[in-house]
Amino acid sequence: MDFSISNFFDRNRKTKTGDFQDLEHIDGLSVSSVSCGLYEKNRDDLVLFYFRDKASHASVFTQSKAISENIKWNKKIKSKKITALLINTRNANALTGSEGFNSLKKISLNLSELLTNKQKKDEDIPRKIDSNEILFACTGTIGERFPFEKIINKLPKLIDQIKYTQNKYIWVKAALGIMTTDTKPKLSMSECKIGSANVRVYGVAKGSGMIFPNMATTLGFIFTDANLNSKLLKKILSKNIKTTFNAISCDGDTSTNDMVSIFATNKADHANIKTVSDPKLKNFDKAVHEVLLNLAKRVVADGEGASKFISINCINCKNEKDAREISFSIANSPLVKTAIAGEDPNWGRIVMSVGKSNAKVDIKKLSIKIGPYKVFTKGILDKDYKESNVADYMKNDSLELTVDLSLGKKYFTAYTMDLTKNYIAINTDYRS
Amino acid sequence: MDFSISNFFDRNRKTKTGDFQDLEHIDGLSVSSVSCGLYEKNRDDLVLFYFRDKASHASVFTQSKAISENIKWNKKIKSKKITALLINTRNANALTGSEGFNSLKKISLNLSELLTNKQKKDEDIPRKIDSNEILFACTGTIGERFPFEKIINKLPKLIDQIKYTQNKYIWVKAALGIMTTDTKPKLSMSECKIGSANVRVYGVAKGSGMIFPNMATTLGFIFTDANLNSKLLKKILSKNIKTTFNAISCDGDTSTNDMVSIFATNKADHANIKTVSDPKLKNFDKAVHEVLLNLAKRVVADGEGASKFISINCINCKNEKDAREISFSIANSPLVKTAIAGEDPNWGRIVMSVGKSNAKVDIKKLSIKIGPYKVFTKGILDKDYKESNVADYMKNDSLELTVDLSLGKKYFTAYTMDLTKNYIAINTDYRS
Repeated sequence: MDFSISNFFDRNRKTKTGDFQDLEHIDGLSVSSVSCGLYEKNRDDLVLFYFRDKASHASVFTQSKAISENIKWNKKIKSKKITALLINTRNANALTGSEGFNSLKKISLNLSELLTNKQKKDEDIPRKIDSNEILFACTGTIGERFPFEKIINKLPKLIDQIKYTQNKYIWVKAALGIMTTDTKPKLSMSECKIGSANVRVYGVAKGSGMIFPNMATTLGFIFTDANLNSKLLKKILSKNIKTTFNAISCDGDTSTNDMVSIFATNKADHANIKTVSDPKLKNFDKAVHEVLLNLAKRVVADGEGASKFISINCINCKNEKDAREISFSIANSPLVKTAIAGEDPNWGRIVMSVGKSNAKVDIKKLSIKIGPYKVFTKGILDKDYKESNVADYMKNDSLELTVDLSLGKKYFTAYTMDLTKNYIAINTDYRS
Repeated sequence: MDFSISNFFDRNRKTKTGDFQDLEHIDGLSVSSVSCGLYEKNRDDLVLFYFRDKASHASVFTQSKAISENIKWNKKIKSKKITALLINTRNANALTGSEGFNSLKKISLNLSELLTNKQKKDEDIPRKIDSNEILFACTGTIGERFPFEKIINKLPKLIDQIKYTQNKYIWVKAALGIMTTDTKPKLSMSECKIGSANVRVYGVAKGSGMIFPNMATTLGFIFTDANLNSKLLKKILSKNIKTTFNAISCDGDTSTNDMVSIFATNKADHANIKTVSDPKLKNFDKAVHEVLLNLAKRVVADGEGASKFISINCINCKNEKDAREISFSIANSPLVKTAIAGEDPNWGRIVMSVGKSNAKVDIKKLSIKIGPYKVFTKGILDKDYKESNVADYMKNDSLELTVDLSLGKKYFTAYTMDLTKNYIAINTDYRS
């Protein structure tokens, strides 16, 4: 993996999930990345998102019962506005007990003091930053001692690098800095209007193993200049997470550290929005969905060892729960995922994974399409099925499966990737 | 894979799950295997178990909603005693619709006629064999047209080879003949007494992908000369399947064709047993459990691409459901399975998979052992943990994980194997 930014843009512009997007400036947000030597190789591993005038915020966290110390920390933060999000890679600070939690306390005290000094230097009306205005995201190996000294040592350098205008290079540097086994940085953007004001919705994310709801997966962060309070952000995030970060699976495993957050700097000049049903929010809601979905797809497309991106549409189900269950039963089936890796139209494995789900299924009504091709129609092999057509289609690096239950009108789309020898190679020696 | 029997015994006697056992004769049972050319390579693919004086029987089947035509057939058989079990590999006769079902009808008519002729030739009091005294087991690719003509063509040869005394070579030939991607035939035996009569309990099985309850998995067949009716057999099988074939998982996938059956020729000379609680049945019950567990472990140890056999003990749970759920959450975690393949004591992944299960878990009470080594004790890394010790232990090809919830007294043991590059290699080009 090449962590340098030079020539990055041309090399990475085309991806399986659409072209790469350039992120620019968001008022009130500064992004800064450094290396504090958490990896043996030289790469950024510590990223700061700094909101000089605070930001409203909302997060959804892993639903695992084994949660990391930083998730515990974040859940305790009751401040309606926060000042910083600090992200480190290589070490998940999970199952590290009170020592891990106290490490975060030390970092937060240190960081808040440094940021208070920064305010004194740069702001007309400087404010004192409290340690509970800081959120943490950690990702990496579980159970290893959290190397907080290395992080604290580099905080001054991290703050030194804060610039009040961001550009695409700064964003890519940050997206690279939060990666673990990802092979590509993940960025996405959308623009919309709230009333007559232009609003930006930017996002970065990282994968790329242990990807399965509930909830979300890995780390995803949305930044906007919209002027919205934390309560509204929470509603918008919770609504849109279901069909985006909660619709993806790489390997069916759920991390101790999963976290998706949205931050609003409130700099956009639009009318005050009081309820989530305000029609002026419609386009913003769409933009947030677009950015979340784009990031979620990028996480899957770059899932460990992935060679193909797969969309699984489960349609005409009795209810959405069944549609979800069937989609994920297919998405998590090692036999389906290996068949796709082998470009083998072994559709029987798709039916197998529909059959093994807990959902209501009537095989006699079941139909399956691979891409545009009917394969299985109302319980039997389609009369026009030609294996060579489907085999050709499966050579694409982005595939679509459609499973039609003919039992109702509800649907769900899950996103996953294939299961390759590379997944095994990555995960048998992750720590080395 | 070498399908020849010469030198087989010495080469295969030692396995990860104990030494290979020799099966001999069971009164009233004949075993016969031929090749009918279902594979391109030359190997047996059709096996007949013939009960000249009928057998009582019981089966448990896959709980998938997508079941194969032979499972549909078997479920319709109401005869209390049956005469034959016919097993073919290469083609699962699943999702083949009424054409697949009618193929079985044709085979059953043909086979019952041939066996009726055989009776006329060999028996003092020949009986007419009905087509509904025949059970079918099929395994192989789903959704391909069932090649019944090839099978029917070879039925005369299959019957020609019937011998009324069986030996270890005949059993191994049969166990080889029912294999698909298995690398080793699976046989097991036990002997016990019912009253003063010696009773034999023999078993054969095949794996080795799509291994996950419910129910059982793959194909497993137990044969005994005990004199027990089908109702008793059903109770004994249902009770013992839970901790044996329903305690294993290779990849979390469930087949359309899973089936485990028990057949009793009733030749043993013991008192009539009326209820399953009869104390005279105690040792028989134990013997059936032993053979089922031995076969189930062999299926896992030979799971596709497996390099290690893993027992997962989940102890001190609130209830057995939770113990099962946690055991299988670990057993089915690709990240745990790849770490074990890499001999990496990445215990954090074990905690992760405990945490993602739906069971009641209190991480502060959770303890984990890898082999004899305490790793995680009451929510934190054990104070005596030495990674090098555990790394050494993980070099063994049979491993034990113990997860202690400290929430109650219930327990469950699941069996699985590691996830290797070979699993991917086998499943990306299964059909080629």
